[in-house]
Amino acid sequence: MTDSSDRDVQQTAAEDPRAERTSAQQAQLALLLEAASAPKPGNVSPRREYRDLRFEQFLAGAVGTGPGFERAAAGDPLGAAFERAIVGMSAQRGGNTQFGAVLLLVPLVAAAGQGPLTRDAASAVVAETTVEDAVGFYRAFDHVDVAVDDPPEGMEALDVRRGSDAGPTVRERELTLQDVMARSASRDGIAAEWSEGFPRTFEAGGAIARQSGPVTDRAAAVSLALLSRDLDTFVQTRHDRETAERVRADARRVLAGEASVERFADDLVAKGINPGTTADIVAGGLFVALAGGLEV
Amino acid sequence: MTDSSDRDVQQTAAEDPRAERTSAQQAQLALLLEAASAPKPGNVSPRREYRDLRFEQFLAGAVGTGPGFERAAAGDPLGAAFERAIVGMSAQRGGNTQFGAVLLLVPLVAAAGQGPLTRDAASAVVAETTVEDAVGFYRAFDHVDVAVDDPPEGMEALDVRRGSDAGPTVRERELTLQDVMARSASRDGIAAEWSEGFPRTFEAGGAIARQSGPVTDRAAAVSLALLSRDLDTFVQTRHDRETAERVRADARRVLAGEASVERFADDLVAKGINPGTTADIVAGGLFVALAGGLEV
Repeated sequence: MTDSSDRDVQQTAAEDPRAERTSAQQAQLALLLEAASAPKPGNVSPRREYRDLRFEQFLAGAVGTGPGFERAAAGDPLGAAFERAIVGMSAQRGGNTQFGAVLLLVPLVAAAGQGPLTRDAASAVVAETTVEDAVGFYRAFDHVDVAVDDPPEGMEALDVRRGSDAGPTVRERELTLQDVMARSASRDGIAAEWSEGFPRTFEAGGAIARQSGPVTDRAAAVSLALLSRDLDTFVQTRHDRETAERVRADARRVLAGEASVERFADDLVAKGINPGTTADIVAGGLFVALAGGLEV
Repeated sequence: MTDSSDRDVQQTAAEDPRAERTSAQQAQLALLLEAASAPKPGNVSPRREYRDLRFEQFLAGAVGTGPGFERAAAGDPLGAAFERAIVGMSAQRGGNTQFGAVLLLVPLVAAAGQGPLTRDAASAVVAETTVEDAVGFYRAFDHVDVAVDDPPEGMEALDVRRGSDAGPTVRERELTLQDVMARSASRDGIAAEWSEGFPRTFEAGGAIARQSGPVTDRAAAVSLALLSRDLDTFVQTRHDRETAERVRADARRVLAGEASVERFADDLVAKGINPGTTADIVAGGLFVALAGGLEV
């Protein structure tokens, strides 16, 4: 080998000539595809923006999550990886763009970083979370305002809005992140996914993978199907159960061809209703589909 | 300090609590913002897609460029960094989504990785390129089909479409990447930017920074202004000079209020004309603006 070929080998760019995306990159792409999918009643897309919450802020949010997802994929402590992703997500002026989606994605990315992504593998990641992961989770709330309900009586010390101030209580009660999620599972759709082995997320992923056509169109279709079936817990938290039920009933009318999706979207925007948990589940489903080989 | 606080410090996520985006992340965000900007006559945006070239493929392309941009920011050889970015960009089914923009961004990212981003700093990066950088640049063409003109007579051995096969000739003639760009500067807008110290890119960056409102709206406005002033070299290459002149004349009519931008866009789509070099310059300008402190 000549000197020049040696240099050539050293400078060759691609270890793997196909350069598949890493799990962390797939998670970023899942966030981007979810944000880009439309029509998506009540949530931000390129076609529907709010004055203070714009599509470009979802782009910046997704870019910023990279280092946190890389930590999760590398097997770093999940709470710290989550916090890092949220810190990066927050480096834009729109506030909380993708908090719930990142919370859903982090254990999936950690599982995919270790091997094939299955519900069992994701549940194993949840089961391995520690008290320090729970402390990291609380600390993430220091970086962004997230809409949550008041905690149940006796749980005030563990109100997520306390952020890192809740740390001592978390340690005193020896709560793992799995424990923290289990306590919110009845009223938060993302916590329910963590606690039940991610059933809706994998189901959404399967539906996205089975459909054909542009990925953003598939994501929009799955989003509407989810809205018509499950109550969106973010809507319940921000508004009330009745509102969430009305959203579901309206989604059913759209699917039945009795109302237009554009009208439905207009109505949600006018009322300031955004079904954020549904968007989070779709982002998780997109990641599951991408990890399973879906091409873009 | 207690044991538990020690662990806490080790697991803290953010070195810098504000977690500014890195130069590599800013470059990815610049690609995303450019793709998302609309209306953008003749180029892909969320509002205008082609059957075989969709917005989601620009999202995947931007995600894939990350590792290459990281190498450029770290001061790795520019040719290999560029090739790595192109390999990552190509991990989607749309083909060449952002080749020219990545070529424009790589020296800017390298300069921003070393200090404040100025035209002088970017030119210094260009001046420091080596023969191996030129070989890496040629190798990048192995990974993606790029529309280029036939080379001038006597330059057949250096036709970029030969990809890595041109390597021996590049080495024999001892051409640096700066030399290669200089030879194309008269007929390629990106090579001209490399050779002239990035005047249009920094001008676009300044215009984007000075405007107000959503960043994607600013990028769309700058795109139309560029179209009305400069001939798009990608249109010249794919079609001919007359076509590029007609595009410029039409852009002027839109700016003068004599034609609608939507009609202009319809016309370009119908004729299969996409002013790709203009989009590349806007992506470069977005990076300059972001590096200079533009918030999203």
